[in-house]
Amino acid sequence: MPAPSARPDRPDRPNTDLRTSELRADAIGAESISANDVGGVLAALRERAPLVHCLTNVVVAQWTANLLLAVGASPIMVDNPHEAAPMAAAADAVLVNLGTPSDETVAAMLLAVAAATSAATPWVLDPVGAGALSWRTRTAERLLAPTTPDRSAPTILRGNASEILALAGGAGGKGVDATHSPEAALPAAIALAREHGCVVAISGEVDHLTDGERVVRVANGHPLLTRVTGVGCALGALMAACCAVTPDALLAAVTATATLTVAAETAANASAGPGSFAVALLDALAAIEPDGLVDRVRLA
Amino acid sequence: MPAPSARPDRPDRPNTDLRTSELRADAIGAESISANDVGGVLAALRERAPLVHCLTNVVVAQWTANLLLAVGASPIMVDNPHEAAPMAAAADAVLVNLGTPSDETVAAMLLAVAAATSAATPWVLDPVGAGALSWRTRTAERLLAPTTPDRSAPTILRGNASEILALAGGAGGKGVDATHSPEAALPAAIALAREHGCVVAISGEVDHLTDGERVVRVANGHPLLTRVTGVGCALGALMAACCAVTPDALLAAVTATATLTVAAETAANASAGPGSFAVALLDALAAIEPDGLVDRVRLA
Amino acid sequence: MPAPSARPDRPDRPNTDLRTSELRADAIGAESISANDVGGVLAALRERAPLVHCLTNVVVAQWTANLLLAVGASPIMVDNPHEAAPMAAAADAVLVNLGTPSDETVAAMLLAVAAATSAATPWVLDPVGAGALSWRTRTAERLLAPTTPDRSAPTILRGNASEILALAGGAGGKGVDATHSPEAALPAAIALAREHGCVVAISGEVDHLTDGERVVRVANGHPLLTRVTGVGCALGALMAACCAVTPDALLAAVTATATLTVAAETAANASAGPGSFAVALLDALAAIEPDGLVDRVRLA
Repeated sequence: MPAPSARPDRPDRPNTDLRTSELRADAIGAESISANDVGGVLAALRERAPLVHCLTNVVVAQWTANLLLAVGASPIMVDNPHEAAPMAAAADAVLVNLGTPSDETVAAMLLAVAAATSAATPWVLDPVGAGALSWRTRTAERLLAPTTPDRSAPTILRGNASEILALAGGAGGKGVDATHSPEAALPAAIALAREHGCVVAISGEVDHLTDGERVVRVANGHPLLTRVTGVGCALGALMAACCAVTPDALLAAVTATATLTVAAETAANASAGPGSFAVALLDALAAIEPDGLVDRVRLA
Repeated sequence: MPAPSARPDRPDRPNTDLRTSELRADAIGAESISANDVGGVLAALRERAPLVHCLTNVVVAQWTANLLLAVGASPIMVDNPHEAAPMAAAADAVLVNLGTPSDETVAAMLLAVAAATSAATPWVLDPVGAGALSWRTRTAERLLAPTTPDRSAPTILRGNASEILALAGGAGGKGVDATHSPEAALPAAIALAREHGCVVAISGEVDHLTDGERVVRVANGHPLLTRVTGVGCALGALMAACCAVTPDALLAAVTATATLTVAAETAANASAGPGSFAVALLDALAAIEPDGLVDRVRLA
Repeated sequence: MPAPSARPDRPDRPNTDLRTSELRADAIGAESISANDVGGVLAALRERAPLVHCLTNVVVAQWTANLLLAVGASPIMVDNPHEAAPMAAAADAVLVNLGTPSDETVAAMLLAVAAATSAATPWVLDPVGAGALSWRTRTAERLLAPTTPDRSAPTILRGNASEILALAGGAGGKGVDATHSPEAALPAAIALAREHGCVVAISGEVDHLTDGERVVRVANGHPLLTRVTGVGCALGALMAACCAVTPDALLAAVTATATLTVAAETAANASAGPGSFAVALLDALAAIEPDGLVDRVRLA
């Protein structure tokens, strides 16, 4: 799996002079990602069933594994320091999620990222709660901007608006809930994408995603997504799965977002509340076909 | 958030001469909590969406978060020693649940309780398995009756009859299942409530709750509640959420119990077994309205 | 609870000269286990509600507990070193599952096995991921073939074909998914059963189970079982529960397998995908009766 093309450039273009206040989203060239591209990545995911090594939090581990299985990927949850490196080296993609970090799991995360870097395996960082808690923010920063050459920046950084703003130097949110809109965080996301040579995905009512050059908005979804814990966390895992089947990390992030949010619309129609919605979401993810995704995804 | 009025008195009234054998439940003045009061707390919970910091066990963490989200609260699960104190200080209420304790999470719990004490934030202790395992019993006792001034007793102590009896010096139960009736544990609960200046809630077929002066029984519920893991654990989290919106901790505990058990009756009608019941319970908790709760709760 | 009769013989019959290549499955005497026997064990499980101490992984802990509760057993999840030994000593059966091991939980597992050995309590080993990761493989080997007299071999070793082959000295699999068929792993299973004096159960499209003399195949099940995380892990817990109510460990393993896979057939008929299947599986496990199991199980 080739690393995203932007990554090798990162050390040579720190862009530390970029500040979110200096950027305007509409100034960015919106090189197109089409609905057909998105459908193609979902088809590839189904065909290849990539092995996704998840170092995630204890709250959402089962949900994440079930969501990956439903959509057709192959999850494996390993977060001890003995096994994190060999597992990451063997996986097709790696997810690092900071939902319930401990000294031991953070050590495993650092080892997994080093192994993924060495193997040129894509990895996704989900900095849950960054900005709200200082130890976690520092841990997220350490993972996002590695100070040692054995670790690369993530292929995709995925969070809500508050987390993205916090990592760009802005103010944090209340707990893990976003208190800012994705639109408000887009300049920060673009700056982070350029600084670290990664894709940045901001979830919200309309998801905003950027690789620092292109900006894609995905306007699917349903309010019930906010009433089930771990949907964002599982989205990060799905982004990792998509990274394993396309070298275009922005397309991977968009496909994961589109697949999850289009399936959520199907699930909401079959639900009486957040409990049945979560169940129906897994069913919808198993049933969604590339053609249906192409028809229903709303990209902007 | 004001601390429950009983708490400041605790150091001045150890009441160590109180023994459960000397108490008669029917001798306690039953100052009334009305169904309307209960409906009012649920309305306030929906309006304020309190942030509930949960230090809970790995078995029920997802379920607890989903249940709080369903009912309208805002859960955050943080149980590492680096973050437990700042998270508790920022939260509207704290849950400490001993379901799967480790040295690290117990350290985090002690830090969280100290931070909650300092911020006068209400906190709930759920001593899962107390009486059945000696290390856990000692840990529960350490949290219930702090020996250092930086930590207060819990606002609410919530358990089954066996756990409450064990903490009052009686015999423990089989694993985490109650082998005693709530009625049999009521004198012990009253004694504990007086000794520690807290509310004590005993779950069972009829839930019994007391602040040492008032006794309230909630007679809603369904046998399927015993076939789903973590219902009691999630009830503790819901009590914490209610504590964040009323200074009357007994009313908070009663509201949480009533909301969960009335919703369980709705869910049981829509279920084919324990799997679909758990799903329907989340739907019912999202749908239950204060008026419906007032109509259906059975207080005694 | 009597230990399986084969266990006391283990030290006297190391059979280290047995190699999988020397065995032919059809050469083994197939002493019969009947459908009626299986129904009898399910009836006993329902009547006695055995306490099953689970040291399992964080991904499937809730699911495992809910599955045991649904079928009528009494789960307790304790995996810290302070409490593992007393809990195992008090339980009717113990499950050790290596899905997400850490130094701390492995220490707890070793203590639990020693306590189970001392109390002659049956225990089940599920070596999740053995063969795929070297630390885990060594841990599984250490649990399977204890080098100190305080720990016995497991009553049942349960895994997929790749895990069983790996523990018998063969090649490992890709992550936690089986890449070999149960039939191909049967000679290895028979060799392991003889070497360690335990039952070996291989899950797959047709489950293969052996105590080294008898071989039983269970041909029930549904492909959706592979789309839900932790079904195999929960099967190990159900085997432990069955071990608590019959001294014939092969019959226990067969009953657990039959109960789960027959219930899966019921659940698949009521499902729209993997999400609703998992929910329906719990409902079906609560509803299945011994008579229905006897009628529907397909043993060979």
